[in-house]
Amino acid sequence: MNSRTFDAGAVLGLDLSNFQNAAARLCDDMLRTPLLPYFGNGALGHVVLKAENLQPGGSFKIRCAANVASALAPVCNGRMATASVGNFALGLARASRSRGIRVSVHVPDTAARIKVQGLEHLGARVVEHPFDQWWAIMTSRQTGEDDGIFVHPVCEREVIEGNGTIGLELIEQSPEIDTVVVPFGGGGLASGIALAMRAAGSSARIVAVEVETSTPLASAWRDKRPVQVIKSPSFVDGIGSTRVLNDMWPLLQTLIDDVVTVSLADVRDAVRSAAAHNHLLLEGAGGAALAGALKYPSERVCAVLSGGNIDMSALAEILGPALP
Amino acid sequence: MNSRTFDAGAVLGLDLSNFQNAAARLCDDMLRTPLLPYFGNGALGHVVLKAENLQPGGSFKIRCAANVASALAPVCNGRMATASVGNFALGLARASRSRGIRVSVHVPDTAARIKVQGLEHLGARVVEHPFDQWWAIMTSRQTGEDDGIFVHPVCEREVIEGNGTIGLELIEQSPEIDTVVVPFGGGGLASGIALAMRAAGSSARIVAVEVETSTPLASAWRDKRPVQVIKSPSFVDGIGSTRVLNDMWPLLQTLIDDVVTVSLADVRDAVRSAAAHNHLLLEGAGGAALAGALKYPSERVCAVLSGGNIDMSALAEILGPALP
Repeated sequence: MNSRTFDAGAVLGLDLSNFQNAAARLCDDMLRTPLLPYFGNGALGHVVLKAENLQPGGSFKIRCAANVASALAPVCNGRMATASVGNFALGLARASRSRGIRVSVHVPDTAARIKVQGLEHLGARVVEHPFDQWWAIMTSRQTGEDDGIFVHPVCEREVIEGNGTIGLELIEQSPEIDTVVVPFGGGGLASGIALAMRAAGSSARIVAVEVETSTPLASAWRDKRPVQVIKSPSFVDGIGSTRVLNDMWPLLQTLIDDVVTVSLADVRDAVRSAAAHNHLLLEGAGGAALAGALKYPSERVCAVLSGGNIDMSALAEILGPALP
Repeated sequence: MNSRTFDAGAVLGLDLSNFQNAAARLCDDMLRTPLLPYFGNGALGHVVLKAENLQPGGSFKIRCAANVASALAPVCNGRMATASVGNFALGLARASRSRGIRVSVHVPDTAARIKVQGLEHLGARVVEHPFDQWWAIMTSRQTGEDDGIFVHPVCEREVIEGNGTIGLELIEQSPEIDTVVVPFGGGGLASGIALAMRAAGSSARIVAVEVETSTPLASAWRDKRPVQVIKSPSFVDGIGSTRVLNDMWPLLQTLIDDVVTVSLADVRDAVRSAAAHNHLLLEGAGGAALAGALKYPSERVCAVLSGGNIDMSALAEILGPALP
């Protein structure tokens, strides 16, 4: 296994051309997703939705994954390994297939079945681990196997560049956006969007949103350093961890302007409202972004709807009991 | 009540500028909806989706309704009446509110509850009728009340112009589309798209799709004239009738190239697949378009996803039992 290192300082130094080049590399792998007005009853027209749930594979992760596959294809000898709750791995499996790269994916045993099935359908090799062991792979970059160059789903320059392409699109689609609410998993999405928007001259606030079941960033924010937290299981499987990654903390301190926490009930309401009013399906992380945007005071706030890969049975349960 | 007449010959004579002018009038009322690749498992990349379910009010009807409201506002004396299963009326209520017009909506008692609630929420006056009485209003343009100028949801020049703006967008978004599959309700959507695309020089086939529970067009096609058919109730409430409107038949004969019928099971599968793979919520009519496109042999076929206003309980039932 080849281990790569992550240089936060170099990432903080990325400039506009890095993100523009990534956007050019990715245009055949992904959609330029629409920016849609939110039509929920309570909204006053100030909330807009970046519909990354409409991407191939159902999440923004195709952006960072395709950028990784494109950049590393010449040096990976046809094999890559990653550790991911699913969406990054889905993107990597998809982007790697057309480039002749075999992907091994290490997932926590809490990953949504629909994501595991999707990985297998795309030809990836899937290895399940108890959550703590999986988290150890995330922090050590050691899978314990000889399964190719290890690609981290968050702490990689190419990941952050790929995610930043969302920021470039937001500025083009609606320069008046003053606040961007981003679901917080490991920080790769928020960091990429923040870096790209600032490189392009925007002063929009970047707000990270967490769900009450797992608040590593709010805790680190309070204590001014990464600390261990409890992660309770829930249908929100795309974000949440037990600790902010040490490698990411220097970026997060610099790039994120505020942190908000939403409840599981808020997320359910947001998923139901996006379905009923905008006819978009969201997974929990996407619902968290909308819930955060609805709570955050702003003239024009964008919720980054990170993905839509929710188990149909979980969705049916959210939609079923209460008519909107 | 003021009755207006419908001149099919004049509508057949609409030229490109009529549709371009409508598009310019409507830009503040509606979205230019994205054209998205279909990501379902069985697809080979040749199916694209015109996501009209993402429109304000959840259906393409905002286009024709806003064009009507915009054109008739100066002459309607602040009142309009219509007969609609819901989506046209929702659009008219929405577009009329900002223009100070009070709308009365005559609906069949089979209309989805979510649409009736939406109308009332938008301030419209709703009058329910048994289906046969409602259909009599549709054909006679007589509501039996003094409730303003009557606007037909299908047989109006302004309706067909507004719907045609979809065709202009399709040509710009993907000139290589060779087939457009359109759900058939009264024929206003298919006619508008066909007229606009031909006016713009396209030779794409226009295929109308019906559900097995109501096939007035397939029956008229076979008998070369409108005939009475049975309409069985189902969750597909946005399309289907007991007879092709006489006023529309000259247009349909000229503009529609083929008619396909899909089963209710096909529609359910399409609704489930659009949710699972594209994270888009469709109502039955939208599902019928996708089901039709999946059956229709073509190099590049576009399904017009006409709307997303499905009862959440019906949706939960479709999504719940079988995991994709």
